[in-house]
Amino acid sequence: MERTVQVELGERSYPVRIGTDLLAKAGPEIARCTGARRVAIVTVPGVRRRYAGRLVRSLREAAVAARVVVVPDGDRTKNLRAAARLYDAFLDAGLERGSAVVALGGGMVGDLAGFAAATYLRGVAFVQVPTTLLAMVDASVGGKVGVNLPRGKNLVGAFLQPKLVVADASTLASLPRRALAAGLVEAIKKAAILDAALFERIERDLERILALDPEALLPVIERAVALKAEVVSKDERETGLRLLLNFGHTLGHAIEAQAGYRRFLHGEAVAMGMVFAAHRSEELGFAPAGTAARIAKLLARAGLPTELPAQPRGAQLAALRVDKKLKDARIRFVVLRGIGAADTVALRPEEILPSGRVRRIRS
Amino acid sequence: MERTVQVELGERSYPVRIGTDLLAKAGPEIARCTGARRVAIVTVPGVRRRYAGRLVRSLREAAVAARVVVVPDGDRTKNLRAAARLYDAFLDAGLERGSAVVALGGGMVGDLAGFAAATYLRGVAFVQVPTTLLAMVDASVGGKVGVNLPRGKNLVGAFLQPKLVVADASTLASLPRRALAAGLVEAIKKAAILDAALFERIERDLERILALDPEALLPVIERAVALKAEVVSKDERETGLRLLLNFGHTLGHAIEAQAGYRRFLHGEAVAMGMVFAAHRSEELGFAPAGTAARIAKLLARAGLPTELPAQPRGAQLAALRVDKKLKDARIRFVVLRGIGAADTVALRPEEILPSGRVRRIRS
Repeated sequence: MERTVQVELGERSYPVRIGTDLLAKAGPEIARCTGARRVAIVTVPGVRRRYAGRLVRSLREAAVAARVVVVPDGDRTKNLRAAARLYDAFLDAGLERGSAVVALGGGMVGDLAGFAAATYLRGVAFVQVPTTLLAMVDASVGGKVGVNLPRGKNLVGAFLQPKLVVADASTLASLPRRALAAGLVEAIKKAAILDAALFERIERDLERILALDPEALLPVIERAVALKAEVVSKDERETGLRLLLNFGHTLGHAIEAQAGYRRFLHGEAVAMGMVFAAHRSEELGFAPAGTAARIAKLLARAGLPTELPAQPRGAQLAALRVDKKLKDARIRFVVLRGIGAADTVALRPEEILPSGRVRRIRS
Repeated sequence: MERTVQVELGERSYPVRIGTDLLAKAGPEIARCTGARRVAIVTVPGVRRRYAGRLVRSLREAAVAARVVVVPDGDRTKNLRAAARLYDAFLDAGLERGSAVVALGGGMVGDLAGFAAATYLRGVAFVQVPTTLLAMVDASVGGKVGVNLPRGKNLVGAFLQPKLVVADASTLASLPRRALAAGLVEAIKKAAILDAALFERIERDLERILALDPEALLPVIERAVALKAEVVSKDERETGLRLLLNFGHTLGHAIEAQAGYRRFLHGEAVAMGMVFAAHRSEELGFAPAGTAARIAKLLARAGLPTELPAQPRGAQLAALRVDKKLKDARIRFVVLRGIGAADTVALRPEEILPSGRVRRIRS
């Protein structure tokens, strides 16, 4: 069972393959799309153990020399030091300008390996092989790569479009249920801002999706990827439309930062951020009453948190202020106009998070 | 006295202003070309003392907040650690996505500041204000930015086109004569591979150029920039034509690496590399006899070295092998077909540097 979404970006266009059991036959296409005869596969220990072997074999059958480079798991290691280690590993592996980097893993691996690929020798070919639902429906499409600084997440990075994305849903079998639900948040987010029909489909099929039934899961991945591809095609450098994808992320990032990136998964923080943003959308008169409740209900069914954690407002404001989407002290905050329709509005951090806000939401 | 070369790169096109006394009036144009209301000026101590003040004043008069960020001088500090310090300084200066980075200095400042600009917040606007002849005729046009790794120069980087280049020849008055001559090497190189008329002009006007007579100097800067602009326009990502600009650089880089980047200026190493490459061009049957001698004569008049230093061949071969232009163990070596015409030929390191080579050249 295989589906393809083509991301249209002129000469940087690329296909996203979505299906089951794709890893073991990905080699020839990676060779064809990159032209590389030598690749480094960047991955984390758990993914390496389960999936690197079949990808390496498939590449070798396609006459591509593959070196597996293992990086420590966890977003906290997505930093410049880790990138420097990757450059060293790429040199050790003999990677040249015509070589390629393959990211095998979740969003953190894609961001870090992608940043290293974007900057090693001023850029080599890049392939994403996402093994988390989050990476499949979000990070692997769009070309955003980067690393964290001690002072904030993703403050350093680049735009690098992959030559190919291979989303093998079979790899999700080993994903913890909590990570699966958190990944689905990004699909729900895209549905909430862009596609009411997808939202309804997820409402209808939620349990089968989380049980990894391909007939329920693959169409959701495909549609979520297609939505993101459409947005990215129209706004590659995130100057307008693409900002809508930040729905739920403004406060989500602040929540994550406040919690030291430990307590919540990214998707969980975004889930809380979305419910918050939907509430604010109602309060500010953009969305009809009940919008936030409908989103919260779906998220709760997936076992996701929907209420803001008890964090000091001052600290959250400070986190909002270093958010990289700041432009002249205002944030382009994404509001819903209803399920499936969104817009941005320029707000100061204090307007996004008015005093007393936390209490009102939790009541 | 002001001239402009327009670098044609579609929506990334930008002007290069060439003239005298440009710094003190650069502010309004920097504001217009970048749209920034806040900039960081990255520079080195000596340049800061002499020139930063007038640029800052001009920016402030144009309502642009300017923060000067000083980095240590010298190519050895052009590394990831220095980039990390720049990111911190940019955060301190409040640089946002709409802000800009201005590189005020030589090629090292441009490379480092440009790399930081290319990657900070996934890329902010960038302006080059070169204060060395080398940076004016070479580094400030083309969009190559990057840093060194312990294992090699410029192994990490990006392509980032500036929004504007301001080449103020008045700043060359404080440049040491040795650096001036080394900078002229890149103009001579472009003449040697692309423009016999420019080569003749430099032969004719050499002493006036080195005396910084604007009437002799500015046309050479303008023509050298125009040549590079033309090449870059046709081949932004260095896949073909642009490789010609590596004339003299293959061995030049090896010489620099062997000497630990201390003994020779970049231009001096390239001067030696050009004479070597011209000799090889004659030996391989590409260039007529006398080509190398003519280049060597001009370089020697400028006080530049033309004979290879006594370095072990094995070490130079090793340096060639890590050269980032390696592709499947062959190097696209640039040969002359005569003054003003060049080509590339794929050679193995041992073919570029046959045994006994050093002796033959020095005889």
